[in-house]
Amino acid sequence: MTAASPEKDQYTSDGGAEHIRPVIDTLDPEATGAEMHALIRELYPICRSITGDGVRRSLRILRRIASLTLHEVPTGTAVFDWVVPREWNLVKARLVGPDGEVVVDADRLNLHVLNYSVPFRGKVPLEELDKHLHSLPNQPSLVPYRTSYYKDDWGFCLSHERRARLRPGEYDVLIDTSLTEGSLTYGEALLPGASSQEVLISAHCCHPSLANDNLSGMVLAATLARLLGGLPLHYTYRFLFVPGTIGSITWLAHNEEQARRISHGLVVAGVGDAGRLTYKRSRRGTTEVDRAVIHVLASSGQDYDVRDFTPYGYDERQYCSPGFDLAVGSLTRTPHNEYPEYHTSGDNPDLVRPDRLVDTLRRYLEVFEVLEGNLTYVNLSPKGEPQLGKRGLYGSIGGGSQTVASQMSMLWVLNLSDGSRSLLDIAERSKLPFTDVRRAARALEAAGLLRVNDSSGEGAR
Amino acid sequence: MTAASPEKDQYTSDGGAEHIRPVIDTLDPEATGAEMHALIRELYPICRSITGDGVRRSLRILRRIASLTLHEVPTGTAVFDWVVPREWNLVKARLVGPDGEVVVDADRLNLHVLNYSVPFRGKVPLEELDKHLHSLPNQPSLVPYRTSYYKDDWGFCLSHERRARLRPGEYDVLIDTSLTEGSLTYGEALLPGASSQEVLISAHCCHPSLANDNLSGMVLAATLARLLGGLPLHYTYRFLFVPGTIGSITWLAHNEEQARRISHGLVVAGVGDAGRLTYKRSRRGTTEVDRAVIHVLASSGQDYDVRDFTPYGYDERQYCSPGFDLAVGSLTRTPHNEYPEYHTSGDNPDLVRPDRLVDTLRRYLEVFEVLEGNLTYVNLSPKGEPQLGKRGLYGSIGGGSQTVASQMSMLWVLNLSDGSRSLLDIAERSKLPFTDVRRAARALEAAGLLRVNDSSGEGAR
Amino acid sequence: MTAASPEKDQYTSDGGAEHIRPVIDTLDPEATGAEMHALIRELYPICRSITGDGVRRSLRILRRIASLTLHEVPTGTAVFDWVVPREWNLVKARLVGPDGEVVVDADRLNLHVLNYSVPFRGKVPLEELDKHLHSLPNQPSLVPYRTSYYKDDWGFCLSHERRARLRPGEYDVLIDTSLTEGSLTYGEALLPGASSQEVLISAHCCHPSLANDNLSGMVLAATLARLLGGLPLHYTYRFLFVPGTIGSITWLAHNEEQARRISHGLVVAGVGDAGRLTYKRSRRGTTEVDRAVIHVLASSGQDYDVRDFTPYGYDERQYCSPGFDLAVGSLTRTPHNEYPEYHTSGDNPDLVRPDRLVDTLRRYLEVFEVLEGNLTYVNLSPKGEPQLGKRGLYGSIGGGSQTVASQMSMLWVLNLSDGSRSLLDIAERSKLPFTDVRRAARALEAAGLLRVNDSSGEGAR
Repeated sequence: MTAASPEKDQYTSDGGAEHIRPVIDTLDPEATGAEMHALIRELYPICRSITGDGVRRSLRILRRIASLTLHEVPTGTAVFDWVVPREWNLVKARLVGPDGEVVVDADRLNLHVLNYSVPFRGKVPLEELDKHLHSLPNQPSLVPYRTSYYKDDWGFCLSHERRARLRPGEYDVLIDTSLTEGSLTYGEALLPGASSQEVLISAHCCHPSLANDNLSGMVLAATLARLLGGLPLHYTYRFLFVPGTIGSITWLAHNEEQARRISHGLVVAGVGDAGRLTYKRSRRGTTEVDRAVIHVLASSGQDYDVRDFTPYGYDERQYCSPGFDLAVGSLTRTPHNEYPEYHTSGDNPDLVRPDRLVDTLRRYLEVFEVLEGNLTYVNLSPKGEPQLGKRGLYGSIGGGSQTVASQMSMLWVLNLSDGSRSLLDIAERSKLPFTDVRRAARALEAAGLLRVNDSSGEGAR
Repeated sequence: MTAASPEKDQYTSDGGAEHIRPVIDTLDPEATGAEMHALIRELYPICRSITGDGVRRSLRILRRIASLTLHEVPTGTAVFDWVVPREWNLVKARLVGPDGEVVVDADRLNLHVLNYSVPFRGKVPLEELDKHLHSLPNQPSLVPYRTSYYKDDWGFCLSHERRARLRPGEYDVLIDTSLTEGSLTYGEALLPGASSQEVLISAHCCHPSLANDNLSGMVLAATLARLLGGLPLHYTYRFLFVPGTIGSITWLAHNEEQARRISHGLVVAGVGDAGRLTYKRSRRGTTEVDRAVIHVLASSGQDYDVRDFTPYGYDERQYCSPGFDLAVGSLTRTPHNEYPEYHTSGDNPDLVRPDRLVDTLRRYLEVFEVLEGNLTYVNLSPKGEPQLGKRGLYGSIGGGSQTVASQMSMLWVLNLSDGSRSLLDIAERSKLPFTDVRRAARALEAAGLLRVNDSSGEGAR
Repeated sequence: MTAASPEKDQYTSDGGAEHIRPVIDTLDPEATGAEMHALIRELYPICRSITGDGVRRSLRILRRIASLTLHEVPTGTAVFDWVVPREWNLVKARLVGPDGEVVVDADRLNLHVLNYSVPFRGKVPLEELDKHLHSLPNQPSLVPYRTSYYKDDWGFCLSHERRARLRPGEYDVLIDTSLTEGSLTYGEALLPGASSQEVLISAHCCHPSLANDNLSGMVLAATLARLLGGLPLHYTYRFLFVPGTIGSITWLAHNEEQARRISHGLVVAGVGDAGRLTYKRSRRGTTEVDRAVIHVLASSGQDYDVRDFTPYGYDERQYCSPGFDLAVGSLTRTPHNEYPEYHTSGDNPDLVRPDRLVDTLRRYLEVFEVLEGNLTYVNLSPKGEPQLGKRGLYGSIGGGSQTVASQMSMLWVLNLSDGSRSLLDIAERSKLPFTDVRRAARALEAAGLLRVNDSSGEGAR
């Protein structure tokens, strides 16, 4: 089963798939779920935004489990059609009512301040204040999350119930924020593989106290980086922790050449809620990563959903813009805006379930197993079936009605390995789990019945 | 929003779509429906056939609203595999019974005479007469429509109820018709556009007193010609009013070169009954006009049906014969032979509803809007999304869950405008109405973010 | 309707379709079913295996109705990855219990002996004997069919009920078999046609007393050879009666060049049970034979099923191995392993129904009609419809709502015969039975409106 060619010595003959599978099989769901959830709880109170110290503090916490590099891009830097904005930081934001009662205080929940509020201090009557308030009439107990990145404004977000109880009078507004020349911060972790082709994992890190969106994605990405770290893999894995939209645009603008080496990518967001897994296809729709994810979900035995690409959502919008058109999809649980707690104070750590985090983690690892192991083989005994029995690969008593799964996998691999079909093609057509197909191929390769086709197909390297 | 290039000055940069849309939006359904229905009632009593004065009189009435040219093709002219037949005219046709009672009289309903009956005058006994009678045992109160164009015969059509009451005896047959060297008449209206490529609208005009089939189509086609007349459109629009089969074959035989310039076409028939709209695809099945019609129907919010091409039906049979294979489909309401009144005296003006006529008219106009406006654009800021906010194209407060339709349209147009996808492609993929997609493209073009791709794709001109 | 070109004189202009259709139409279901069933009953008691006299005797019986050649391939011959095994013959196999009672005897049912058992004679205690017994706990009254071709072993198969009653003690084992240098026998019938391209019909002939699997297939294949014998057909028909797996591999290894001439093929097995017809596609999935079978089944008016190719099943596994990848599917009734009697003593002649045998036979003949008659024509009057009426091909009274099927067939053939579409394409698109489409083409050809396109498409020859 060892690889023969010198080039193959750099990595195993099925990429890192054989190294990723044990990581999956030995995952301790309870311990891993608890670790991930503890990190989310720790990160939750920090006031993040598209710039500022909240992002820096958060990424430094993730450094405990993954070696992130923090990049700073100065305010005013032109990035394609955009410009890196001033840096925003929150010191304090509080609204006090006519009778001196504290209506809202960002120290208690940072969603209360309109994200990117300009500083403001003064007394305003209710009718004036009202223009600066944001609430949800249809979800009266929840505080909404609102931003004003690109228009100077100040404001408070509060529950509609609280807003309804505001009495006329003068309100004391304190918004102690700063909007200054500074920089945009993003985190990056690179796991070099045998190939310079890359797998991109991107998580937005700009939301304040929202747990599923997207502390879940940030922690899952960092955990993936931890688990893959040190494994001898085929692909180079790049993890990005970027503020939404402006962050991915900034990275693309500064890494245009590098971006062309991204062979497969996934945007990680909303991966801890109780809903089923949902895959949103890349713009091209049927790339290898699209097929790998869908095969993993179809083989999971769980309910799942697949959506077509739309140019709305997370940073796949940027990676799939027509000037890049990368093979980047998004694997989430319930899609954004389809759960009632989305972008409200209801998206707190209680919404995120440790077991769902681990389930999503496992599917990401399985996708990597497919990408790493998706080789194309050639059947070296292609005329009729080879005699598996004499090689100990087939049962000796015939006529029975059961053919064990491993035998079916071998028959499928032999039948379809004509040098043009990858193992993922075979797994899709046979509806057998990729792992079984891959193992069958390895056994047949060891028996001298199969060799990797170096010159054709998506699995050729 | 005005076009820049000199070439574009000839017509607007999205063809005539921007001129057709206001026609749709300002349509007065009640007045238009009443006008169309009044014309149908006026045309109803005329005895049309594939030749003769009935067609001439009918087309002259339509000249009130559209500038039709009448063409006369002499009897005996060879047209492909066919020959233009003798001209038929009806003076009088009456059947009088043994007791002197008038059994049927074409003056009361011209369906009573077998269309194209040879002249006959004489007394015949019932048993002889019976061979010349046509009725509908399963629809005993209705008079059928029957023809004998290519075999010399005479006959009467009557209700089965009336036929059952015929008593033995001598019947007095008077069929005062003429079959003489004359000509075949067809009408044509041409609205020249910026391009020599044509849109064909074809209606058969040969049926006698049948309202839905096809006075509805004749009047709808003439109304379209009236509404489009004078608009600065991209395509040249050709309206044909031809006797079924022999008429379209005659036109094709005499306009073979011209026929090759037909880029898109629709056969108009049965467009006023209460049923849902039905589209019958062209022989090729997925041409631009097929896709345009289906998109319009899918966006209408109403029930509709799509059928595959069959070589049976109306004149699409001829336009889609393999020697032409034009992109011509047929947009009707209930298909021929699927409503009980079809080809009977039940197809009278009461079967045709003014509101249904206007609904169909509107869909034809929407199809033209799509064809005219189906340009292919190139995103001039293709790396990442351009910043719509700074151009006033995007709301300033973020985080909310609603993205207005116009923003979604813009995001779709930007994402897919890579020079290979037309606006119809984008409308189909996004499932957004074409009008919204077109308006988004125009706004983005005005903002300098998009330009028309002159060199590729179906929308390139 | 006679063919004009000299080349065509060799065979009729639509291959042998016009000769096969009368065979179908004149089939006497009762007599044919009775004949086939009688043969199955006669063949049933013979102990067949992958080698040996059982196969020879069986094929000689089939020679009564089809001129089979018997081939002998010596033990030890290398065939691709395999070697022809020693020849196995059964003289006697009997198991006697402690009290002298005969537990099982292969003379009564040859399934009782493990097929390919090595000779063995001696007394063994029950606990030792037990390792050599095979039964079905979930089907306790049935005797299973088991083999040990490639591992030296001996054994008995018996009902689980009988096994449960075995008492401790010494058992007298008599397995009088021989495993010697000999040969593998297969049968072959060749019906030469005008073309050297072949249609392959392959039936496995290695199973002992199992009626549906596959005496039904053997007898059906031989009956097809009888019915087609002497007809002037386009294709050459090759019938193979081969032991499963090793037999088809042997044939392929010895006929590699010949195998490349197989244009279409079907594996015949399990064709007499009461279940619906099931088609398993070839590996390529949409070859002409796949489409022909599916069209025949879809036109049959009966329930049927279509399955995708899998590399498990009968000898299609070998014909569709990647080194050959022939267009060979399999038309059966209930697929192997999906009926409870499969590979048990329940698969006896009572399971096979004469009417089902004839129904399957008929479908095979209809498939051959399609393959033989699947020509591609060119409409010689392609501009507009030709005037069928003046040629007596169309009714004279128009306006009625019924178009007879023959007219629709003619319109479809005329419309689609542009030299690129075969009659099967037309039958599929029109959903008309192939026979009707073929007859319409012949009538139009006779009227001078159509000619065979010799230079393109699948039907070109």
